[in-house]
Amino acid sequence: MLSFELCARAGAARRGRITTARGTIETPVFMPVGTYGAVKAMSPRELLEAGAQIILGNTFHLWLRPGLAVIERFGGLHRFNGWSSPILTDSGGFQVFSLGATRKIGEEGVRFASPVNGDRLLLTPEVSMDIQKALDSDVAMVFDECTPYQIDGRAATRDEAAGSMQLSLRWARRSREQFDRGANPNALFGIVQGGMFEELREESLAGLTDIGFHGYAIGGLSVGEPKEEMMRILAHTAPRLPDDRPRYLMGVGTPEDLVEGVAAGIDMFDCVLPTRNARNGWLFTRFGDLRLRNARFRDDPRPIEPGCACHACAGFSRAYVHHLQRIDEILGARLATIHNLHYYLGLMRSARDAIEAAATVPGAFEQWRREFAANRARGVV
Amino acid sequence: MLSFELCARAGAARRGRITTARGTIETPVFMPVGTYGAVKAMSPRELLEAGAQIILGNTFHLWLRPGLAVIERFGGLHRFNGWSSPILTDSGGFQVFSLGATRKIGEEGVRFASPVNGDRLLLTPEVSMDIQKALDSDVAMVFDECTPYQIDGRAATRDEAAGSMQLSLRWARRSREQFDRGANPNALFGIVQGGMFEELREESLAGLTDIGFHGYAIGGLSVGEPKEEMMRILAHTAPRLPDDRPRYLMGVGTPEDLVEGVAAGIDMFDCVLPTRNARNGWLFTRFGDLRLRNARFRDDPRPIEPGCACHACAGFSRAYVHHLQRIDEILGARLATIHNLHYYLGLMRSARDAIEAAATVPGAFEQWRREFAANRARGVV
Repeated sequence: MLSFELCARAGAARRGRITTARGTIETPVFMPVGTYGAVKAMSPRELLEAGAQIILGNTFHLWLRPGLAVIERFGGLHRFNGWSSPILTDSGGFQVFSLGATRKIGEEGVRFASPVNGDRLLLTPEVSMDIQKALDSDVAMVFDECTPYQIDGRAATRDEAAGSMQLSLRWARRSREQFDRGANPNALFGIVQGGMFEELREESLAGLTDIGFHGYAIGGLSVGEPKEEMMRILAHTAPRLPDDRPRYLMGVGTPEDLVEGVAAGIDMFDCVLPTRNARNGWLFTRFGDLRLRNARFRDDPRPIEPGCACHACAGFSRAYVHHLQRIDEILGARLATIHNLHYYLGLMRSARDAIEAAATVPGAFEQWRREFAANRARGVV
Repeated sequence: MLSFELCARAGAARRGRITTARGTIETPVFMPVGTYGAVKAMSPRELLEAGAQIILGNTFHLWLRPGLAVIERFGGLHRFNGWSSPILTDSGGFQVFSLGATRKIGEEGVRFASPVNGDRLLLTPEVSMDIQKALDSDVAMVFDECTPYQIDGRAATRDEAAGSMQLSLRWARRSREQFDRGANPNALFGIVQGGMFEELREESLAGLTDIGFHGYAIGGLSVGEPKEEMMRILAHTAPRLPDDRPRYLMGVGTPEDLVEGVAAGIDMFDCVLPTRNARNGWLFTRFGDLRLRNARFRDDPRPIEPGCACHACAGFSRAYVHHLQRIDEILGARLATIHNLHYYLGLMRSARDAIEAAATVPGAFEQWRREFAANRARGVV
């Protein structure tokens, strides 16, 4: 089950609430990525403390390790990984295409060799739905082909993008059918493809709404295209997504991207940036990004972000986290991840507040956007 | 400052309380090792939750990274690493000798090349005391030479052990003098050396008590000797250590070693076993050790140790921690470390309880030892 209500608007921006069997999700929301079931370096308790409402799991990775037999033994991913709030799973498509030369795409699905043990495997819309059902994710995604921005070093042509989008539509229909056949009690989202071509995006969306999904995602962005291209497709597609369903911008992005997405009417985001960058010493703050391994922080007694209430900033200095990261100590990855997720999740919380405030204070959301941009441009002292 | 009171006895075993400026330590106590200031994979909050009262820091490592200038800027290690309970620091001697061919021992101290940047460095009793003062550790250790069990592939001779022990005694005196010259307000422990020779151990102890320290440690055990040799020297040396001062068995050991040590009258232990082994999937439990990466645990829904109240056992299955460790996910190292430290610290808590119980229930401590051994021998199901 999944329902969605809109609580407030500010221009195209939406303040909503998704209800699932495992609880409600206030939107706009950022979803930390838990590839193998765990958000890297974090415990479920720390995720809740950072304000996470929903996490993402990767179907492809979990299928290979620990494998479905183990997760079925536990009755789903939540009881395996100890995260009892909602989980969204991707379809495995994006990861399987990333395998490059070792995979072969056909009408039926994608054949590939397991990177774990070399087994020949076939991932299809039906298999993806079956895996996601076994994972018991609260939101499943259709199996689709993410049209690459570049093919053989040049931008994908209109014909290539169209062919890929149409294959994805056929797979979306098969995904829906298998989802229904399996009597999956959770939700299924469609994914709009179509590359950098507005009319293909419209055609994809029309096909998806014809099938009917609990929510709609924009796929195939943040895959190497220039920022202007991404913003052009986002601006064109987001307002056309059904107003009464959650809208999800997949794999995006920087704090600036998230704010743009919210302003364009997006409700859900996921990205590895805050977690992956944290482990490399790249910290996100209100006042811009901070490369913590830089020598200038080696004896800096201030917290990562002065004024931040996260566990890392409340208890530790830049100098200490710098030291921990330079010696590759696990706690260094942990504290940086805690901060980055706190920042991302807090950014979405303040976006929600700003959209709500706009109901009584005209311009409140636009003012919030300006302050966000001005603060980020200030730079870390 | 450091004071020690004895609360109860059971045979040679002692139930004591060490008071430092940063709080009291109930003994017998196990001290988790925080090489670079952090106990690997753990946060200070988790250490407290696991029951840690005092942690160990490594002078040699902290001297090299982050370096003294940084720690002095913070006014000591506690304010740098966010651990406000007591810290014991070793002298750096053990680590510098481990460098092997690249170090040169003389009367003055040890010359070596920094493994970080190749700088030529000299570690002496005076330098070690100065570093430990800058770290502001609650318990400093004298700079000594840990007599190796083997030299060039054969057991150290009596002459070699005697020469090494006498050098350590001269360094202990210089350590004490520098400690006093620096007006270090904390405590300094002497270290009994003498290899596998009882009379050398006695000579070392006599020299140390002549100088006078706040506590006495047994060094040079658990350095490759057979278990019987270790137990022979422990049994000979422990009861001869001053009764009114804390007794510390350095670098030891397995759960069985700790129980033997407690029975012999030892108050303090440190060892990397619970933390290092955890990261490799070696779990300690009441019912023996468990190699969690073994395939038989891949779908085991039970906690690491049924009945254990630690955060790992309360919330996660063997199968999940197995999965996390097989994919080298940080949370896998964390949960295993939490469990192992909980086990080690809980073992010392139950030892304290058993010694106290012996005051009213004769034989309670011996019964506790028998139950410990019987449970450990049972094996993990």
